[in-house]
Amino acid sequence: MQPVDTVIHARWIIPVEPASVTLEHHSLVIHDGRIIDLLPTSLANSQYQAATTENLPDHALLPGFINSHTHAAMSLMRGIADDLQLMDWLQNHIWPLEQQWMSEEFVKDGTDLAIAEMIASGTTCFNDMYFFPNITAQQAIQHGIRASIGLIVFDFPTVWAKDSDAYIAKGLALHDELRGQALITTTFAPHAPYTVSDTPLQQVVSLADELDKPIHIHVHETQHEVEQALNESGMRPLQRLHGLGLLNPALIAVHATQLTDAEIALLAETGAHIVHCPESNLKLASGFCPVARCLAAGVNVALGTDGAASNNDLDMLGEMRTAALLGKAVAGDASAIPAMTALQMATINGARALGLADEIGSLSLGKAADVVAIDLSHLETQPVYCPISQIVYAASRQQVTDVWVAGKRLLKQRQLVTLDVEALKSKIAMWQQRLAG
Amino acid sequence: MQPVDTVIHARWIIPVEPASVTLEHHSLVIHDGRIIDLLPTSLANSQYQAATTENLPDHALLPGFINSHTHAAMSLMRGIADDLQLMDWLQNHIWPLEQQWMSEEFVKDGTDLAIAEMIASGTTCFNDMYFFPNITAQQAIQHGIRASIGLIVFDFPTVWAKDSDAYIAKGLALHDELRGQALITTTFAPHAPYTVSDTPLQQVVSLADELDKPIHIHVHETQHEVEQALNESGMRPLQRLHGLGLLNPALIAVHATQLTDAEIALLAETGAHIVHCPESNLKLASGFCPVARCLAAGVNVALGTDGAASNNDLDMLGEMRTAALLGKAVAGDASAIPAMTALQMATINGARALGLADEIGSLSLGKAADVVAIDLSHLETQPVYCPISQIVYAASRQQVTDVWVAGKRLLKQRQLVTLDVEALKSKIAMWQQRLAG
Repeated sequence: MQPVDTVIHARWIIPVEPASVTLEHHSLVIHDGRIIDLLPTSLANSQYQAATTENLPDHALLPGFINSHTHAAMSLMRGIADDLQLMDWLQNHIWPLEQQWMSEEFVKDGTDLAIAEMIASGTTCFNDMYFFPNITAQQAIQHGIRASIGLIVFDFPTVWAKDSDAYIAKGLALHDELRGQALITTTFAPHAPYTVSDTPLQQVVSLADELDKPIHIHVHETQHEVEQALNESGMRPLQRLHGLGLLNPALIAVHATQLTDAEIALLAETGAHIVHCPESNLKLASGFCPVARCLAAGVNVALGTDGAASNNDLDMLGEMRTAALLGKAVAGDASAIPAMTALQMATINGARALGLADEIGSLSLGKAADVVAIDLSHLETQPVYCPISQIVYAASRQQVTDVWVAGKRLLKQRQLVTLDVEALKSKIAMWQQRLAG
Repeated sequence: MQPVDTVIHARWIIPVEPASVTLEHHSLVIHDGRIIDLLPTSLANSQYQAATTENLPDHALLPGFINSHTHAAMSLMRGIADDLQLMDWLQNHIWPLEQQWMSEEFVKDGTDLAIAEMIASGTTCFNDMYFFPNITAQQAIQHGIRASIGLIVFDFPTVWAKDSDAYIAKGLALHDELRGQALITTTFAPHAPYTVSDTPLQQVVSLADELDKPIHIHVHETQHEVEQALNESGMRPLQRLHGLGLLNPALIAVHATQLTDAEIALLAETGAHIVHCPESNLKLASGFCPVARCLAAGVNVALGTDGAASNNDLDMLGEMRTAALLGKAVAGDASAIPAMTALQMATINGARALGLADEIGSLSLGKAADVVAIDLSHLETQPVYCPISQIVYAASRQQVTDVWVAGKRLLKQRQLVTLDVEALKSKIAMWQQRLAG
């Protein structure tokens, strides 16, 4: 009998790699934060002596969701301005509020709200881009969730830095500071082609190459963005980014609702990644990412919620469902984006985009034990002909019962382990008064 | 002090009529199954002596959702065949399973599963179309939910009837039998233009007119349907239905993903209703209903989930959200289908389509007390700048805590009052074995 930290016995285990496999009555064995075995429950009891044993007789175990595009702290602005045009929303609502209220305290409390919602809905890693990324990282570390922290870059001054040189300098300092943190990685995060000029983009390309870091950027979010770039420079943004050397396997291109066939081929050829944010794209009427065509061309497509101000939740179960449903309608093909593909987008494809595919994204031996349990015994997910279908098309976030990151339990029978919910609610109430005032 | 049955004190009350009103710290007064007052909580306590008092300090009260298109019993086939083309799905999966298993017992157990899910997610009335409508009605009555029961008509034989005359005769008999039932109304439900020929459609028109009943029919679900009709008859289905006299305020046209401007104008002019089923349309890649254009033209657009086999849930909160999000993207306008419009589609517009606007669809004095309470204190719906936004864009079905139909409580603090969940689960398990076998 081998002593180990944790053994989880589950009705179903969906490792994601290999794809479409659902193991029945299997057990996941975790030691020192890593997955060390995956075997039939009938064998697990005779091979392992676990410090902690979990029995999940109605549950599916799967890799934790990777939310590949967030602005976590914006959760404090959930629902403050809906049903508005993108530029009206940004210029007359979101940016003035940020101008007035942005601070370390705002990012701390907003990130805590986001982390609470993410853990409770099965997200174990988020790829963020916002002001005060140092605070976002600090809160992720405090609450035990994995995060990919964007070192934000703009041309113009904000409360975080005064010009692109200062953004980059602060980003590099933060990168150094976070180097020993097991759960934290960083990306360069120039906001968008229309907010960052060529020189800082070139600096970012060269630093990203040197430090082997991804570049996280909004690209081709709207037709307006593409048309404006064409008017101003004669180039579509992706063409300009290609010229600057950004199109390579380090690129995490978020949104991509406006893509020609040639651009899809170029993304595939250069190994760049897309993050699809279907609910945000719908809510802001930004357009439809041609996900089925991108996947068919060989582009890696991950999934993100975007910030809660344009979604309005951080629920990856809901986002998978929207991606699977919308992807079919956009392709005009009901067999496009099957449930398993949506699940890959929310797990292993996200890991690939973040450069973390050796560490997370599937329940594979040697990977970190980032694991989520979903209870399928609710009437809303009965009968269970296929657990993957029920998870993608019918389960809701409250069916996520337990979550582990690197083997540490963050959600235990629906209770958040590392957050004080009542204290958090008081802080949210204070922010609501301030922001609505 | 006036003695009354029930007083509910709520943090917010959203009556839906008048639109966009949110009352704070108000109370709803119910007597003999009807809403008899709606007043500030500070006054309610001194005016009414209630047999039952409910305090809902974190909740929004709103009219129960009206699911305007269901095939309730199909919940037993939830997830049995996903990610398939419509005709492959129907011809090679759904229809053969129905052929083999359709029975009163199937409809009874499947409808119970659907009713349990609907009550627990805030639906208080459903507009159904399926085999054995007598059983659907019987189960709705047993569990206390309001239902509009479709008297199904096909040209061809099924287990329910052998030809269109027999369908109509059985429908009329059922209509007579259900006449005294307070919670039940009926519609004529010819399945679709491509499954019911002119003669029975004309009979239905004349009977519907005579009995003052709605006609519930799938129309223009897919481009294929329209093209096939054009090839066979030279007419688009709506043109044919118009010729047969179906376009009038009794028509409940479900799906309507293929509409010309002239057809939208015709629907508006004749007072016909559309039921939009966005998730089913997406999942089957049927097309996009131009909801914003229909509403702008003055067409009444209600909301339905369709059956759980093509959705895969019966969750009207989720359906509202999808309708609001998708409607913006389809219109190319982020201000289209604001949250309040989606809420109207799920309540009062459904009541209008079913001919029940004097009875249900809003929290108005004299209407039946079909009421739902949603707890907005969950972190996922914080902060609450606008309760309507949180309900449409962020709340999940588990936040529905309490449901009343005609003043009778059907859900009490998340517990189903009129259904035995464990017994139902056993029956579902039996059906799963049979259908998957």
